[in-house]
Amino acid sequence: MDAAILNVGTELLMGEIVNTNAAYLSEQMKKFGINVYYQIVVGDNHKRLQSVLSVLSEKVDVIIMTGGLGPTKDDMTKEAVSSVFKRDLKQNPEAVKQMENIMKRYGRSIDEITKNNYRQTFFPEGSRILKNDMGSAPGFILETDEGKKAVICLPGPPFEMKAMFNAHLNDYFSSKSEVCIHSRVLRLSGIGESKAETELMDLIESQEDPTIATYAKPGDVTIRVATKQRNRESAEKALEPTIREIKRRLGQYIYSEEDRELNEMVIDLLKEKNWKVSTVESCTGGLLASNFVDVPGASDVFEEGFITYSNASKEKRVNVGKKILNEFGAVSTQTAEAMARGLYEKGKSDVCISVTGVAGPEGGTVEKPVGLVYAAFLVNGKLEIETYNVRGDRQRIRSYSVRNIMKKLYQILKKVD
Amino acid sequence: MDAAILNVGTELLMGEIVNTNAAYLSEQMKKFGINVYYQIVVGDNHKRLQSVLSVLSEKVDVIIMTGGLGPTKDDMTKEAVSSVFKRDLKQNPEAVKQMENIMKRYGRSIDEITKNNYRQTFFPEGSRILKNDMGSAPGFILETDEGKKAVICLPGPPFEMKAMFNAHLNDYFSSKSEVCIHSRVLRLSGIGESKAETELMDLIESQEDPTIATYAKPGDVTIRVATKQRNRESAEKALEPTIREIKRRLGQYIYSEEDRELNEMVIDLLKEKNWKVSTVESCTGGLLASNFVDVPGASDVFEEGFITYSNASKEKRVNVGKKILNEFGAVSTQTAEAMARGLYEKGKSDVCISVTGVAGPEGGTVEKPVGLVYAAFLVNGKLEIETYNVRGDRQRIRSYSVRNIMKKLYQILKKVD
Repeated sequence: MDAAILNVGTELLMGEIVNTNAAYLSEQMKKFGINVYYQIVVGDNHKRLQSVLSVLSEKVDVIIMTGGLGPTKDDMTKEAVSSVFKRDLKQNPEAVKQMENIMKRYGRSIDEITKNNYRQTFFPEGSRILKNDMGSAPGFILETDEGKKAVICLPGPPFEMKAMFNAHLNDYFSSKSEVCIHSRVLRLSGIGESKAETELMDLIESQEDPTIATYAKPGDVTIRVATKQRNRESAEKALEPTIREIKRRLGQYIYSEEDRELNEMVIDLLKEKNWKVSTVESCTGGLLASNFVDVPGASDVFEEGFITYSNASKEKRVNVGKKILNEFGAVSTQTAEAMARGLYEKGKSDVCISVTGVAGPEGGTVEKPVGLVYAAFLVNGKLEIETYNVRGDRQRIRSYSVRNIMKKLYQILKKVD
Repeated sequence: MDAAILNVGTELLMGEIVNTNAAYLSEQMKKFGINVYYQIVVGDNHKRLQSVLSVLSEKVDVIIMTGGLGPTKDDMTKEAVSSVFKRDLKQNPEAVKQMENIMKRYGRSIDEITKNNYRQTFFPEGSRILKNDMGSAPGFILETDEGKKAVICLPGPPFEMKAMFNAHLNDYFSSKSEVCIHSRVLRLSGIGESKAETELMDLIESQEDPTIATYAKPGDVTIRVATKQRNRESAEKALEPTIREIKRRLGQYIYSEEDRELNEMVIDLLKEKNWKVSTVESCTGGLLASNFVDVPGASDVFEEGFITYSNASKEKRVNVGKKILNEFGAVSTQTAEAMARGLYEKGKSDVCISVTGVAGPEGGTVEKPVGLVYAAFLVNGKLEIETYNVRGDRQRIRSYSVRNIMKKLYQILKKVD
């Protein structure tokens, strides 16, 4: 089954918001072994929307649309679907009731419902309506070609769209697809993407199933080996020889075989050991702590964090000596070490991590350029210090530093008894 | 001039990464008054890439591509451009020299350059090559139809792409476009998008230039009024009557007329007053502090932050009494207030902000459901407490809380003398 994702919204074309919906939906499709061939964004323009929809309906089996289901004049997804697939828009009584309930819940009277609000209760004839648990605009599935094809319309706001997908579409796609893509992921460190691919070139060139793909993410090379199979068991059997061969060639660079986020893996290791972690940050300004707290259940292991942004704060909160700051500067291995040791003194967490660096754009010097970042890891009494030289802007330097720190912490925790 | 953005990469179609490049490039085009009609993502598939490129070349004047310029087999952008626009790929001696210099800089010998690395030195004949200051793959501009149309190819990694755009394409587009879009932005609070649009419907329906568009972002309604003009002065004249009329109708809801990020506006107000800000966070876990530190030069006003995630940390770091925690719980107005007051005692910052809430997915109760968040603002001695009920998942609850806090802080700072 082949799919396309069609996101509607002038705010996307104006660059007002980043299209996270396309990535989310693509990831979901992958689970069901459905190939996504196109992600397309068009604005709130009836003619272009209709023409793209009509082209896609020829090229793929499933079109998943987001956006344009709201109450305002520039919401025109349903009109476009109606005219391309020749289904009139009909009002749905259930949807009317739901909308009136939602307005009541917000403490508004039914008289306050504007005429355009009611546009949200009309759908192309024959649609299956998808309730919106997080907002007011319902979505819908319209099957065409005797159920062989479908267009699925979801709301634009990501949290409404995700909730609707989880509530209705997991089951829908499970029932539709016979095979799923099963994959294993190897994460590598200390080798470039180009070199990694060269080492595997003969495998990649001759591949059919399983397929091998290399990706470079900030600070990482990832190899995904994927196979289309009916179940996990046959998938494991199909993947095994390829995985073994890749490990034979690149084993020294592989640091993880799990297809999960680094912060989740780190938190699991900390839980296993029943260890607490604390952080003290300068240039990352809370991003490192936030990366821990992103994971549900982080409270079992994350104790506390300090953002000692000023030098005064470094002295007061984690006892970094004036002498160290004066002699070596706030961005130095000495300060990083003192921060980590001071953090340990304050709270006795098993894992104490410090980070200090020059995030830029100002503040760089020849000896300490923008992008120079030090991190200290005091884990169960043992200290390690890392130096990173990150290229890019302020945002990238900060987020890349956090990723490097989590990777290093994962490696340390894997080794420690 | 009409444009399309074409991002190439299977990793985008697989949902491995979010397409931030499309948003960035769209935003840049807006500055030059260039309409972006499509954002399209295709995978590393020669046939589909070629067919989309060929369709777009009929529909728009400028195609900006990202990705597929790298050294590996699945990088096929240049081959596609070459075949669609019928220009042979020729090796560029300057690019060869640059690549060898880059390899040397990374401490690799020229012998180590793999054959596929050299693919990065070939370009469609007649291209103007764009140096990559942040990576190894150069980009290029290929003008067609006697300079009336162009295809522009940029690298996929966002920081390489942005650096290349800034170094070469600002000048390129300035020289191409006669008019620029000038716009003003009004930010509203306390009114829904649908209601705001209804109030302006007659203006929106009759609009030509200036145009009015409403957007709903988390916690915000934004109205953008835009006009195409040769310079800022004539733009102001064209925008003035429309802005005045919108303010007459919706003035009570407007909290800002600046088209800048909230955190930048807040930091500017703090700088004006020469005030320091400190934060103490529970559920947001560093996101609030990070939102301050995101802004270059934040160090002038941001003093320090505490992430008192555990109750023990709330007691030790900001003196929240055991009695308060036991009687009212960690998520309560009382705890929020105690955190803010304790934070002030510790560091005497002029602005002390605390936040505590239930980020979920676990930990909610009937009285204190997931999404309940309290924030306390102790500004120049005066306390205000806000309650937020945020719908959505853990990530959204945390980021939405930060946005609400920044909005409230902006309002407080605007009022205070």
